[in-house]
Amino acid sequence: MKVLVNDEIIERNEAKVDIEDRGYQFGDGVYEVVNIYEGIPFTLNEHIARLYRSASEIGIKLSEQPAQLCNRLLELIKCNNMTNGGLYLQISRGVTNRTHQYEQTLTPQLVAYPLPYKSVQDAQAKGVEAITAEDMRWLRCDIKSLNLLYNILVKQKASEAGAFESILIRDGIVTEGSSSNIFIVKEGVLKTHPANNLILNGITRTKLLEIMDVNSWEYKLEPFQKEELMEADEVFLTSTTSEVMPIIKIDSVTFSGAQPGPFTRKFQTAFSEAVKAETKTTTEKA
Amino acid sequence: MKVLVNDEIIERNEAKVDIEDRGYQFGDGVYEVVNIYEGIPFTLNEHIARLYRSASEIGIKLSEQPAQLCNRLLELIKCNNMTNGGLYLQISRGVTNRTHQYEQTLTPQLVAYPLPYKSVQDAQAKGVEAITAEDMRWLRCDIKSLNLLYNILVKQKASEAGAFESILIRDGIVTEGSSSNIFIVKEGVLKTHPANNLILNGITRTKLLEIMDVNSWEYKLEPFQKEELMEADEVFLTSTTSEVMPIIKIDSVTFSGAQPGPFTRKFQTAFSEAVKAETKTTTEKA
Repeated sequence: MKVLVNDEIIERNEAKVDIEDRGYQFGDGVYEVVNIYEGIPFTLNEHIARLYRSASEIGIKLSEQPAQLCNRLLELIKCNNMTNGGLYLQISRGVTNRTHQYEQTLTPQLVAYPLPYKSVQDAQAKGVEAITAEDMRWLRCDIKSLNLLYNILVKQKASEAGAFESILIRDGIVTEGSSSNIFIVKEGVLKTHPANNLILNGITRTKLLEIMDVNSWEYKLEPFQKEELMEADEVFLTSTTSEVMPIIKIDSVTFSGAQPGPFTRKFQTAFSEAVKAETKTTTEKA
Repeated sequence: MKVLVNDEIIERNEAKVDIEDRGYQFGDGVYEVVNIYEGIPFTLNEHIARLYRSASEIGIKLSEQPAQLCNRLLELIKCNNMTNGGLYLQISRGVTNRTHQYEQTLTPQLVAYPLPYKSVQDAQAKGVEAITAEDMRWLRCDIKSLNLLYNILVKQKASEAGAFESILIRDGIVTEGSSSNIFIVKEGVLKTHPANNLILNGITRTKLLEIMDVNSWEYKLEPFQKEELMEADEVFLTSTTSEVMPIIKIDSVTFSGAQPGPFTRKFQTAFSEAVKAETKTTTEKA
């Protein structure tokens, strides 16, 4: 496997970082995961735009243009002969003597490499289970940063309970999953938490809402209580790797007869078609 | 400089970590900074006990006994001929393919190395300035984890304002500094936030409270509002590297005539004596 480290594409086993990389000592960095479909990175520009936004929000200045970074990532995908899977990339603030405060002159450190393909088709067909957990994260969840300790702790909790995801509840309100956005359907109307500081504005979430707009399907961007979640007709999550994933059970409550519901099915199909359309268009362009 | 990486003491320039160390990708680890006085690590056992507690709280199991780790740190101090300065150590959950959830079988990764001596005597004599900032951190600030992004952002904010520290306010309550505990003195009575999930229970804080107990000096472990902070007679912070540091100005308000107050002076002296006594005892024992 080949890894992109700053300007160089090197062998996986040569890819090391310094112990005083601020990513290692403070989680001082940002990241993205992009899905690759038949060699084509889906919504790459959107992911890179969000990466730049996250970096900017924490004061990391990237001298390189987004388009240049995209080109190097495309080269990395090609080098690795990737067909399906994920592309992980992270940027940390730089390497320097350890102090909390930082100089503006640091050189951001980039690492990018392929993540193996994991089929989610079976889970998408059957639906997955989730548990609820308290949302104890910081108040800038809109930044896709490397400070993921609480996310991993609640994902682990889900995993140990035999569930796929933890749905986070802050002050009674459903915010999002540990690595996904959460949607409910009640009487045909979709609802999800608005994109503010309490959630990460998912690319898949955004894409799905665009599809809703195009089709004039009704949705509400409104906070909703845990009670409303538990009384929903259908629940699903979205994420880059899970796409549109039905949730058929939360804690001990089952939804739509422990099967993916009709609206979730409709959104899954519409999303798949959008992926196909976009990756096809990109291929033809290339 | 020599660095301890797991079981080996190696040269600084050889000390690298893998790109899939969970410390680098998730901030999935814990750390400590220990002060070294004339070659003696102050309150080493207390720091190591807290490190083990932090690790345990996030589900990192350390197979090694604390005493064994202490011995290796003492060897590292000796190898580097350290007299004064700091010892930084961090433990991450391990190296593995990137997923949020983790296997229990991972091998935790240790890195420890000397931090250069920075004199704080002048600042301790004159006092420092601070600013206030909103406390937007997660709700497990009692864990000394590598998820320090908000801490560094507010420390940077302080630094750019020409101040030494940011004092964090959550829901109107003074919690702590970005890398310190905050104390106020009003009419001779010391007050600081109780040690719960909203603050890191500092070793220097604990040591100072022990000194208070020994001397039967009055103090209260009670949350207090920002207004109470701003109307205090004296304010100071404690941390491993700053010890007892007077705060003479917060935002635009000065305290005790922009000089360290008499109680702060008394606590500084008492703390210095405790350091001298303990490092002397340790030397004599050694």
